[in-house]
Amino acid sequence: MVNKKKVNKIKVIPLGGLGEIGKNLTVFEYEDEIVVIDCGMSFPDGELPGIDLVLPDITYLLRNKDKIKGFFITHGHEDHIGGLPYVLKQINVPIYATKLTLGLIESKLQEHNILSDCTLNMVKPGDIIEKGNFKIEFIRTNHSIADSVSIALHTPIGAIVHTGDFKIDFTPIDGEIIDLQRYAQIGKKGVLLLMADSTNATRAGYTMSEKTVGETLDNLFIKADGRVIVATFASSIHRVQQIANASIKNGRKIAFSGRSMEKISEVARVLGYLFIPQEMIIDLNDIKKYPNNKITIITTGSQGEPMAALTRIASGNHRSIQLEKDDMVIISSTPIPGNKKAVSNVIDDLTQKGAKVIYEAIEDIHVSGHACEQELRLIHALLKPKFFVPVHGEYRHLLSHSKIAENMGMDKSNTFILEIGDVLELSRNKAEITNKVPAGRVLIDGLGIGDVGNIVLRDRKNLSKDGIITVVIVINKESRSIISGPDIITRGFVYVRDSEEIIKDIREIAYKSVKGCLDNNVTEWSEIKNTIRREINTFIYTKIKRKPMVLPVITEI
Amino acid sequence: MVNKKKVNKIKVIPLGGLGEIGKNLTVFEYEDEIVVIDCGMSFPDGELPGIDLVLPDITYLLRNKDKIKGFFITHGHEDHIGGLPYVLKQINVPIYATKLTLGLIESKLQEHNILSDCTLNMVKPGDIIEKGNFKIEFIRTNHSIADSVSIALHTPIGAIVHTGDFKIDFTPIDGEIIDLQRYAQIGKKGVLLLMADSTNATRAGYTMSEKTVGETLDNLFIKADGRVIVATFASSIHRVQQIANASIKNGRKIAFSGRSMEKISEVARVLGYLFIPQEMIIDLNDIKKYPNNKITIITTGSQGEPMAALTRIASGNHRSIQLEKDDMVIISSTPIPGNKKAVSNVIDDLTQKGAKVIYEAIEDIHVSGHACEQELRLIHALLKPKFFVPVHGEYRHLLSHSKIAENMGMDKSNTFILEIGDVLELSRNKAEITNKVPAGRVLIDGLGIGDVGNIVLRDRKNLSKDGIITVVIVINKESRSIISGPDIITRGFVYVRDSEEIIKDIREIAYKSVKGCLDNNVTEWSEIKNTIRREINTFIYTKIKRKPMVLPVITEI
Repeated sequence: MVNKKKVNKIKVIPLGGLGEIGKNLTVFEYEDEIVVIDCGMSFPDGELPGIDLVLPDITYLLRNKDKIKGFFITHGHEDHIGGLPYVLKQINVPIYATKLTLGLIESKLQEHNILSDCTLNMVKPGDIIEKGNFKIEFIRTNHSIADSVSIALHTPIGAIVHTGDFKIDFTPIDGEIIDLQRYAQIGKKGVLLLMADSTNATRAGYTMSEKTVGETLDNLFIKADGRVIVATFASSIHRVQQIANASIKNGRKIAFSGRSMEKISEVARVLGYLFIPQEMIIDLNDIKKYPNNKITIITTGSQGEPMAALTRIASGNHRSIQLEKDDMVIISSTPIPGNKKAVSNVIDDLTQKGAKVIYEAIEDIHVSGHACEQELRLIHALLKPKFFVPVHGEYRHLLSHSKIAENMGMDKSNTFILEIGDVLELSRNKAEITNKVPAGRVLIDGLGIGDVGNIVLRDRKNLSKDGIITVVIVINKESRSIISGPDIITRGFVYVRDSEEIIKDIREIAYKSVKGCLDNNVTEWSEIKNTIRREINTFIYTKIKRKPMVLPVITEI
Repeated sequence: MVNKKKVNKIKVIPLGGLGEIGKNLTVFEYEDEIVVIDCGMSFPDGELPGIDLVLPDITYLLRNKDKIKGFFITHGHEDHIGGLPYVLKQINVPIYATKLTLGLIESKLQEHNILSDCTLNMVKPGDIIEKGNFKIEFIRTNHSIADSVSIALHTPIGAIVHTGDFKIDFTPIDGEIIDLQRYAQIGKKGVLLLMADSTNATRAGYTMSEKTVGETLDNLFIKADGRVIVATFASSIHRVQQIANASIKNGRKIAFSGRSMEKISEVARVLGYLFIPQEMIIDLNDIKKYPNNKITIITTGSQGEPMAALTRIASGNHRSIQLEKDDMVIISSTPIPGNKKAVSNVIDDLTQKGAKVIYEAIEDIHVSGHACEQELRLIHALLKPKFFVPVHGEYRHLLSHSKIAENMGMDKSNTFILEIGDVLELSRNKAEITNKVPAGRVLIDGLGIGDVGNIVLRDRKNLSKDGIITVVIVINKESRSIISGPDIITRGFVYVRDSEEIIKDIREIAYKSVKGCLDNNVTEWSEIKNTIRREINTFIYTKIKRKPMVLPVITEI
């Protein structure tokens, strides 16, 4: 018996990027074929001490490895490409992306020494790649990084449009306006499902054009007497271009500072996305050869990242750049929530060293790369999808976006606010959540992948609060008497030289606990250890209201 | 020989509140008399793991204990009164403050069990207290907490005006406009030194009146179908009054949630600063007895603090309040920089539970309590001081404020951007920084004061990054052979059950290190420990790029 009905369905499974801004990865499955849009990572917040980066859980992809036809990438930001080096080591399938995006992926794979094993395919907006039942079409869009695309998946049961990250910029720096005509064309033919960027769905109105930043920069450069140091995201090529343009107009040579700024600007220039005459670029070590008012330094660190160039400049630890009185520092970005305090500290350090600091609160030197409410409405109006899944946002962003869709007439039951791992199954006329697959976060600490779990994180958090007290005791196996110890060693608890008394008290309590246990013929080490831990904890909490971790170590000889 | 010249000087010594927003405390010294304005604390940021609060270093006050005539307090915020319980235990002098401020101080001293030992004096705006050569005058001002005052110190060499925290509100909730007439009068007579609030000095224009928030609240309450839950600072009595007013207009009973909200609203009602008819207030446990649209809950947690009521409501851990679908949650404050991520998480949790969440980005439900540029200009114009010290701000705020003063015609050399500990010495015609006294931060962790220093903090930070590895070895003193161990115990490093191999490797490395040292007749334990530490560190970094703390413990028997 042939079950036609069962076959004519497509599954959409987001494994990241919903309920969060980061690690975007969406699976599309039709019969025995899978295509994946984006493969990102996210950066850890304060709740993940010691973690370097976070990947999506790809258990589902590993289980269905043989079905996967390729990764199709919308643009070159870390939350869309950062997972590739890790995922490709386990699932080696072709990657499809536009030129600049591919350039950034290449340099990433090179760092991980797996470039030669990977298959990279360059596409351009307008291209359609055929993979079995899927026709994957790339559509020009605007975003804060050049060469961004939306992806339309043409499937046997209808078209799915995934916007990727986008805004509508009628005056983009490269002149390439988002391809609204193609959107309209696809919309006219009929769209089964729209998945669209929700980052700015809670903001009314329109996002300003990137070009407005150029005007602000021009005005600032005219006023600058000394060097101009501009911090921005290395990947914001158009922003870098505008900084370079303002510099060139004012006869300023340009130096890059910060590893990712040097790398990405190099990639972008080689690939033809960043246009700066060679003679205008100088080495950072040569800046002293020119008068200050002929120098622009473009640098990383606009988010106050501890090791980034601007932070080192601010704290006086940069090898080549010492702040001078007439320097103007422009921080051309918005601090993301977790970084606001760090950025504020950097601004204060720079100000204190005499620099004139320009930041978002003072001048319009940043615009968002994401569409606001009116732009989203336009996309919905052009595409008129049957079903809608808001993506790329925390819950409130997704909710706002779904309200926008409903407010434009979409049936509430046709809008799905998904969680990662949800399986949305669509036929021509119906969509429903039918299943849940494993999804979550995989933590990367150093070279270890997934070996840091909740217990380790809980321990790290506790250790950071009140430190650790190690109690070392050696016991004679036969006589059950204490041979040596208890020795008390602490880290992160109190400064021992000033706190001899409390350490002495702790030693005594440990001694009494062990002695009591031994005298009462307690034979289970775990019970003795628990007693030590409990009694020391109680003592310390009563005495100074702290809760250090207590680690008893009993050696039997 | 009488040295008249030396005597006729006043010293101004800020011990907190400059280069930071927090722990305000300023010392004024004339001959052998000292008066102190404010005695605050500050809250720790992420750089101070495990620290509960931060106090100013009062070494200078302790050294000059006998000179101190009293603490004169401008208003009841923690950064102005929070240090009192700690400082009064060491320096018991009278406190002078207005009624509400005193009420809040009282409840604080009561908690610390020192109320009966302290001398509290109530003053009202307009009062002048005489203390030797100082006449201390309290002047009505506006701020986000009721009963705030500026302080004018009339001294033999001239008047010093300290604004305290202030804004100019022409329509304050209690009808008491800042006493601009008295400012003008004092200004006309001549002001030697102005010390003024710089928090909003980087912002152009005027701060909006508190009353505008009332209008927004009214509009929101009219639209609310279910309960209204409003989070704000417990100390923002006028805000709480406006929330209560909107509730009463709509026939909603009011319940308070959160310890400080319950406590401060009680103090404010008893003292006559908060007017809510008794019959409109209900116990939080009785909210279920009324229809949802007849309930308002006023709660703490507007900064996303982990243990505050709103955070517990958001995470579903509040004992009496479970979110319901029609609940409207209003977050009536601005997240301070370090809290933005936490507030964002709370908003998302609330939204996910179905509540309609109103926050600053969406509606104007908060105004600042501090003066913006135009208000600062007005104060400078009224007072026309000879010398000026901007206070209450990070460096860039102080700098902006000094630029405002210069721009209004003040001589640059008469403006002093001080650091804490600087001694500014003023005569009738001259001001100069003549000295530096000890100043800084004293960290409070639990009941311990000052026993957590840089080494302990550094250890805590390191522990939180990659955890700790304890290596325990027992050695025979005579034969110099290993009797037991090395035992490897880790916390916060890796999840041991999944990482047996690396633990085994670490044990082997430790064994070889010790064996090598013993065989080579190394006798210094510290050298053996360093060897173990170095070799384990190298191995782990090479293998998985992590840097856990390694703690070798050698017991000799």
